[in-house]
Amino acid sequence: MRVKDVKKVVLAYSGGLDTSVILKWLQTTYNCEVVTFTADLGQGEELGPARKKAELLGIRPENIFIDDLREEFVRDFVFPMFRANALYEGMYLLGTSIARPLIAKRQIEIAEQVGADAVCHGATGKGNDQVRFEIGYYALKPDVKVIAPWREWDLTSRTKLIEFAEQHQIPISKDKRGEAPFSVDANLLHSSSEGKVLEEPWDEPPEVVWQRTIRPEDAPDTPTEIVIEFERGDAVGINGERLSPAELLTRLNALGKENGIGRLDLVENRFVGMKSRGCYETPGGTILYVAHRAMESITLDREAAHLKDSLMPRYAELVYNGFWFSPERRMLQALVDESQHSVSGEVRLKLYKGNTIVTGRRSPNSLYSMKHVTFEEDQGAYDQTDAQGFIKLNALRLRLGAMAGRKGGTL
Amino acid sequence: MRVKDVKKVVLAYSGGLDTSVILKWLQTTYNCEVVTFTADLGQGEELGPARKKAELLGIRPENIFIDDLREEFVRDFVFPMFRANALYEGMYLLGTSIARPLIAKRQIEIAEQVGADAVCHGATGKGNDQVRFEIGYYALKPDVKVIAPWREWDLTSRTKLIEFAEQHQIPISKDKRGEAPFSVDANLLHSSSEGKVLEEPWDEPPEVVWQRTIRPEDAPDTPTEIVIEFERGDAVGINGERLSPAELLTRLNALGKENGIGRLDLVENRFVGMKSRGCYETPGGTILYVAHRAMESITLDREAAHLKDSLMPRYAELVYNGFWFSPERRMLQALVDESQHSVSGEVRLKLYKGNTIVTGRRSPNSLYSMKHVTFEEDQGAYDQTDAQGFIKLNALRLRLGAMAGRKGGTL
Amino acid sequence: MRVKDVKKVVLAYSGGLDTSVILKWLQTTYNCEVVTFTADLGQGEELGPARKKAELLGIRPENIFIDDLREEFVRDFVFPMFRANALYEGMYLLGTSIARPLIAKRQIEIAEQVGADAVCHGATGKGNDQVRFEIGYYALKPDVKVIAPWREWDLTSRTKLIEFAEQHQIPISKDKRGEAPFSVDANLLHSSSEGKVLEEPWDEPPEVVWQRTIRPEDAPDTPTEIVIEFERGDAVGINGERLSPAELLTRLNALGKENGIGRLDLVENRFVGMKSRGCYETPGGTILYVAHRAMESITLDREAAHLKDSLMPRYAELVYNGFWFSPERRMLQALVDESQHSVSGEVRLKLYKGNTIVTGRRSPNSLYSMKHVTFEEDQGAYDQTDAQGFIKLNALRLRLGAMAGRKGGTL
Amino acid sequence: MRVKDVKKVVLAYSGGLDTSVILKWLQTTYNCEVVTFTADLGQGEELGPARKKAELLGIRPENIFIDDLREEFVRDFVFPMFRANALYEGMYLLGTSIARPLIAKRQIEIAEQVGADAVCHGATGKGNDQVRFEIGYYALKPDVKVIAPWREWDLTSRTKLIEFAEQHQIPISKDKRGEAPFSVDANLLHSSSEGKVLEEPWDEPPEVVWQRTIRPEDAPDTPTEIVIEFERGDAVGINGERLSPAELLTRLNALGKENGIGRLDLVENRFVGMKSRGCYETPGGTILYVAHRAMESITLDREAAHLKDSLMPRYAELVYNGFWFSPERRMLQALVDESQHSVSGEVRLKLYKGNTIVTGRRSPNSLYSMKHVTFEEDQGAYDQTDAQGFIKLNALRLRLGAMAGRKGGTL
Repeated sequence: MRVKDVKKVVLAYSGGLDTSVILKWLQTTYNCEVVTFTADLGQGEELGPARKKAELLGIRPENIFIDDLREEFVRDFVFPMFRANALYEGMYLLGTSIARPLIAKRQIEIAEQVGADAVCHGATGKGNDQVRFEIGYYALKPDVKVIAPWREWDLTSRTKLIEFAEQHQIPISKDKRGEAPFSVDANLLHSSSEGKVLEEPWDEPPEVVWQRTIRPEDAPDTPTEIVIEFERGDAVGINGERLSPAELLTRLNALGKENGIGRLDLVENRFVGMKSRGCYETPGGTILYVAHRAMESITLDREAAHLKDSLMPRYAELVYNGFWFSPERRMLQALVDESQHSVSGEVRLKLYKGNTIVTGRRSPNSLYSMKHVTFEEDQGAYDQTDAQGFIKLNALRLRLGAMAGRKGGTL
Repeated sequence: MRVKDVKKVVLAYSGGLDTSVILKWLQTTYNCEVVTFTADLGQGEELGPARKKAELLGIRPENIFIDDLREEFVRDFVFPMFRANALYEGMYLLGTSIARPLIAKRQIEIAEQVGADAVCHGATGKGNDQVRFEIGYYALKPDVKVIAPWREWDLTSRTKLIEFAEQHQIPISKDKRGEAPFSVDANLLHSSSEGKVLEEPWDEPPEVVWQRTIRPEDAPDTPTEIVIEFERGDAVGINGERLSPAELLTRLNALGKENGIGRLDLVENRFVGMKSRGCYETPGGTILYVAHRAMESITLDREAAHLKDSLMPRYAELVYNGFWFSPERRMLQALVDESQHSVSGEVRLKLYKGNTIVTGRRSPNSLYSMKHVTFEEDQGAYDQTDAQGFIKLNALRLRLGAMAGRKGGTL
Repeated sequence: MRVKDVKKVVLAYSGGLDTSVILKWLQTTYNCEVVTFTADLGQGEELGPARKKAELLGIRPENIFIDDLREEFVRDFVFPMFRANALYEGMYLLGTSIARPLIAKRQIEIAEQVGADAVCHGATGKGNDQVRFEIGYYALKPDVKVIAPWREWDLTSRTKLIEFAEQHQIPISKDKRGEAPFSVDANLLHSSSEGKVLEEPWDEPPEVVWQRTIRPEDAPDTPTEIVIEFERGDAVGINGERLSPAELLTRLNALGKENGIGRLDLVENRFVGMKSRGCYETPGGTILYVAHRAMESITLDREAAHLKDSLMPRYAELVYNGFWFSPERRMLQALVDESQHSVSGEVRLKLYKGNTIVTGRRSPNSLYSMKHVTFEEDQGAYDQTDAQGFIKLNALRLRLGAMAGRKGGTL
Repeated sequence: MRVKDVKKVVLAYSGGLDTSVILKWLQTTYNCEVVTFTADLGQGEELGPARKKAELLGIRPENIFIDDLREEFVRDFVFPMFRANALYEGMYLLGTSIARPLIAKRQIEIAEQVGADAVCHGATGKGNDQVRFEIGYYALKPDVKVIAPWREWDLTSRTKLIEFAEQHQIPISKDKRGEAPFSVDANLLHSSSEGKVLEEPWDEPPEVVWQRTIRPEDAPDTPTEIVIEFERGDAVGINGERLSPAELLTRLNALGKENGIGRLDLVENRFVGMKSRGCYETPGGTILYVAHRAMESITLDREAAHLKDSLMPRYAELVYNGFWFSPERRMLQALVDESQHSVSGEVRLKLYKGNTIVTGRRSPNSLYSMKHVTFEEDQGAYDQTDAQGFIKLNALRLRLGAMAGRKGGTL
C-alpha cells in the first residue's frame, strides 16, 4: 500500500535516532530527495544538533528547515483551545494533540515552498498521532503523498533499528542503545509518557516518569500566590507583568513545576479503538485551565457558559482525534470565540503542593451583582415574589403530568 | 399571592431559630395545624433537641416526624448522581441540590399520611432551594399548597426575626442573637457556606468558613493510600471492607477531611438568574468522583463514556435546578445506568494535602488490552496497516473539501 | 404587581379593537402619555386605518409610529433562522416566534427616541408571546417598565371588553362584536390560528381556519417547477430573477398558496408549561426550508451538517421561548453562519398539491464528487481496500468489548 | 489483506447473479465450504428460487438457510428506531441501514450453529453497507473472519462478472445480462435506488426509479382517512383492527403506495466520506413517522420530547453508520424507551397525493389540558399573574447583562 514515485519528501525530523533512521530509510527506499523540518515547540531540546545531524546524513542546507514555532503554537493553537476549556474524557488537557496540527501545517507549507510531493512523520501505526498528522496533511494539501514508515517497514524491533542505523553510519548516542523504559513527547504545553513500564494500569508509575514537575511532597510548604490577567478569553499577564503567549505559558510552567502541579495518570480511549495509559504533565496548562474557568465564572452569562460546557466534550474529542483543521472545529471555535468578548479581568490563585486554588476574581465586565445576591436588604433590586410565578410555571408541566397519574416525573 | 384555607401543613423543621419562627408564624398567620419533619441527612446535628423544641412550641407528639434518611440519601440520590459524574459548571458536586428532592419527597409522604393539604420550607426567595423544594412538591402532589414564608412575611431583618421570637417565647440560643457571618447548609455529602463575608468574590474566604476539612497545609506530610471497590457503578467497599452507602461516604468524608480534600470556592449561576459565590466542602464526594471516573476509564466503552460526558452538563443542570423528579432526569438516568453494568473493580488512590491521585485501577471487566496497546511485539493482535485505510476514509471528506478550495477545513 | 409612575408608554398597536381598548385603558389607568407603534410585517393589513384610529383616540401625530419592517424582518430575522433549518418540535417553522423580537426591538428604539419609560403589548398571560416581547424588552433596555394589560386588568370577558370600548367611544367594527371563532396572528412568514374551535385536538380544524393557502385538493393538477438561487445560505432569486428578501418570501408565499403548501396542525409545548394546539400556514417558508436543506446537501461538509443538526433543536427552542436577544442564540448563530460561506447554488423544485419536491441541486462549491461515488470505474479516485482498515479500527472497541463478554454492544 | 485458512463461510445470499458469482468465487478462491443464508425481510421476492439456485451451485441442503425475518425485523429493529423518530440528515428514514444489523446477527447465529469461521457479504467497498454488516459481525463474534469479495476480487466490471458466471455455469437471467440502470435495495420498510442514471444530482430521477409508490399525480383525488392506534410508543392497530408489527407495516405500505406517499430524492453523506445520491421510497414508514410524532405530541412531557429531539440526530447517525450493536445505541435506546411508557392512544390521518396530514389525536394519557389552555374563563386553573415572575426571572440574567453594557444579548 506504499505510495509510488515520490520525488521530494518533507520529513518531520527531531534529530533523534528514530527520525534519523527514517531519513536514511526514505533515501534508500524511495530514492527521493529528503527535506527535514525541525520545530521548536518548547520541547526543551537544542535544535542545533538536529541541523548538524541532518547535514551529516547528507541533507543539503537549503533542504534543512528549523523553525521556532513557540509563539504561534501558544497563540493560535493552545489559547483557542483553552478558551473552550477543553478536557478530553474529563481529565486530559490535550497537550500532545494540539501540537500535531501545527507541525502538519508547517510541513505542508514547506512542501508547497520546495515543491515536495510527499510528507513523512515518525508516529507509529497504533497511536493517535499518525491520525492527527495525516488528517492535517490531507486537509491542507489533498493530493499529498503520505509516508508513515512505522506502518511500512520491517524494522519492527529495537535491534533491527540499531542494526539499520549502524549499517548506514547513523550516529547513535550511548543512551539510545538500550530500550527506553517508556516513550516521551514534549512541548511547551506538556510532556507525556507512555508504553513499556507504564503498560500495566494497576501499577503506580515510577517517579522517573515525571520529568516536568516535582513531586507535590517535595514542593514548598508555603503557597505561592499569583494573579493572572485575562483579555477577551486569553491570559495576557502575570502579577502585573504583560507577557507574550509563549512567555506566559513558560512562566506558568515554572510556577507549576515548582509547586508540583499538573500531573495526570490516565487510562484513555484512543481514536484507533483501544485504551492506553498515559502519564501527562501540564503544569502551566493546569493553572491556566483553572484560572480561565474562574475568569469566566464572573464574566460569562449562564446560558453562554452552559452552552459552551455542553459542547466542550465534542470540541475536545475533535482535537484529540486530529480534526483541528475541520469545518466542525472551526464552527465550534466561532461559537466559543463569540462568547469570549467580555472574558477580561483578573484571577488570584494559590499554588500549593499540587493544588491550584482560586482565591479571588474581578472584572470590569463582571456580571456578578452583589446588589442582587446579597443576604442584606437589597433596596428592591430583586423582588422575591417573582420567584413564586417562576416556580409555578416551571412546575406546571410536572403538575399536569402528576395530575395525569405520572407522579414524580415518571413517564 | 398567599394560599388560602390551609388546614394542616408539614414543615421542614431543623429545630433552629429560623424554622422555629416559621413554625410559630404558620400557627399565627394561617391558624392551621403544624406537623414538623426533621431529617437526619448526615448534617452532623443531634435530632433530639428538634423534637424537644417542637414539643415546646406546642406541636403534638404524633405531629412530630424525625427520620434518619442517611442510607436512602446516599443510595438513591447521591450514588445515582455520581454514576453520571455530575459536575455543575465544571466544578460543583451538587451537595446541596441533591438533598432537596429527598426532603421534598418525605414531606409529601408525610402530608399524604397525616392528611395535610400544605407544605412549608424555610428557603429564601433569592436562592435555588425554594425551586428545588417546590418543584419536588408539585411533581409528587400536584394539588399541594406551598407556603414559603421568606417570600411572604415582613420579618425581613434579623432584628424583626428576633423580636418575633421573643414575642412568641421562642428560645434563642446565645450565639444566634447576632448575625451569622455567613449561611451554612450541610449533609452527608457536603457543607456549603455563602452570603455576608463571602459576598465579595475578590476576597479570599476566611479560614473559619471551612468547617468540614482541614487546611491542605495542615494535612499530614505523608500520603494516605486507599483502595475503593466498585460494583456496577457504585462504591461498595474501602480497603477490602464492605460498607453500606452511608457508611462508605462517612468513611470517605473522614479520609478527605484529614487530607484537606474537597474545598471549592466558586462563583456560580443560580437558576433564578443571578450569580452567587459559594464555598463548598465535599471531602468524600471529591474522592468518590475521581475514583469513579478512574473505574470507568478501564471498564466503559469509549463511545459510551463520551455519550455520558456529552450529557453530563445537562444532567447536572437538571439536578442543580431542582428537576430531580422529572421525566428528563429519569430518561438520562436510564441512559447512565444502562452504561454501568460493567463498572466494577478496584481503584487505588493516594490522598495527600488536597490531592486525590489515582495510582492504579483494575477490573475483571477491563476493556484495556495490553496485547493491543503494547509497544512490544503484539503477535498480530493489531494490524498496523489497518490505520492507513482508517485515516484515509476519515480524511476523505476533508480532502474533497480541500479539492473544492476549502483548505484546512474552511467553510 | 403593577408598575408605578409611568410617564410615557410605547404601545404595540395594531389598530384593532383589543389594542384600542388597551390604548384607552393605559390612558385612564396610568394617566400617562401613550405612543403607538404599528409595524408592517407583512400581515396583509392596511396600516392607514391604524393611524386614523390612533388619532381618533387622541394620540398626537408625533406619537404615532408606523413602520414598514418587512425587509428587515426577512433579512435579519427570518433568513438567519432559516440558515439554522430551525423546526420547533420537529415540525413548526416558528413564524410567530421570529416576529416578536423585531417588534420588541423597534418598540425599545422608539422608547429611547421619545424618552418613554414603559412599553406595553397586547399578548395574554397564558401564551408565549408575552415572554417573547418582554424578554426582548428587558434584554435591550433593562430598566424599562413593562405593562401587560391582559395580566392586570379585569376586562376578562368579551362582554366587558365591548362594554369598556363603548364607554370610551372606541369604534367597534361589526364583525368584532361577536367572539371570533379562533385567534389569528399573521406576518410575512406565516399565519397562525388557535383557541376556541381549535381547542379539541381530536377534531379536525374547520376549513375556514386556513386563510393563507388553498386546500391541496383545490390546487392545480399540474406541478409548478421553480429554481431557487442561494448565496451564502440565503435565497437570493427565483427562476433567474434576483429578489430582495421580502420580495422573495412574498413570491414564495404566492407559489406556496396556489399549490396548497405549508399547512400544519400541531399540538405543541408552550414555554409557560402547557400544551396548546395551533394551525399554522407557512407557504413560502416551507418551500424555503426544503430548498435550503437541499442546497446544503451538496455544499456542506458532513460533520458541519451533523453539528448543525444536533444543535438545531436548541436553536429552535431558543427562538420559540423568546431568547432571540441572548448570548446563547448569538453563539449558535455564529456557529451556523460560519457554516454557510459555501452554501450557494441552485435548487430545482416541483410544487404540487401540498408537496415540495426537490428535483435537482447544483453548485459551484459542490462537494459531491461523481468521480468518487460512481458505480463505474473510478480511475483510482477511491481505493476500496481503504475500507477494510476503516471498518476494522471502527470495530476494534466493539471487538474488544465482545472479547470481554459484552456481545452485540451490551454493557 | 485477504483472510487465510477459511474452512466454512456463511454467505448472505439473495439468489441473484451477484451473490451467485460470489458463492462460486468463494468455493474456488478459498476452497472452503459455503453455507447460504437467505432472509425474507419483505423485499418482495420469492425465496424458493434462492434455494434451488443454491442447490444447483452445489450447496448441500443442510447448508441452505432460508428465514422469514419480517416480524423480527419490524418488532425489534424498525419499531425501536421509530420510537426515536430517527431521521438521518433531517430527511432519511434509514430503511436500508436498519435491515443490515439483523442480517448480520442471523449470519453470525448460523455461523455459530454450523461451526463456520467466516462470513461473507455482497456489499461494495464504496458504500455504507459493508460497514454495517461488518461492524455487526465483529460486535457479535469478535474473532470471525470477514470476506468482502468486492474489495478483493478482480471482477471489477460487468463484463468480467458475466464471463466468470458463464465459465462456472451460473445461470444468468436475460434481464441481468445488461447493466441495470441503477442499483436497488428493498425490504419491508423501504426501497432504495442509487447509482448510474441517478449519479447527476441536478437531473430529476426518471419515473422508472420509483417502484414502490405511485406518482402523487396518479393517486386518488379523494383523501383516505385512517386511524392508527399506539401502545407504549409502537403502532398496534389500524382502523380498529389489531395487527402484528409486520402486518401493520405491510398495511401502511399499501396505503402509502396508493396515495403516492414516501418518496425522497436525497444527496446524503456516507460514513466512508463521500456524498451520494439516493432515491428512497418509504410509504408506510413515512405515515408511521408522522403518526408517532403526533401521538407523542399529546402524551410526552415537553422536556422529555425536547431531550429526545436533541439526541435524535446522534441516534440516526449511529444507525446509519452501522453501530446498531453498540453500547451507545443501547444507551440511547434506554433513554428513548423510558420515554414511551405513556405514548398510547390514537392518531387520525388523511392520506392524499403524497401528503400525510394529521387531523386528530387522543389518548387516555393525554397531557393536553383544555382547562389550562382555553381562551375561555378557566376557573382558576392557571393564574396569569404567575407569568410575570416567570418572565422576570427568566430575563434577570439578560437584564444584568444589559446593565453591564451588553445590550440585546451581546457578549
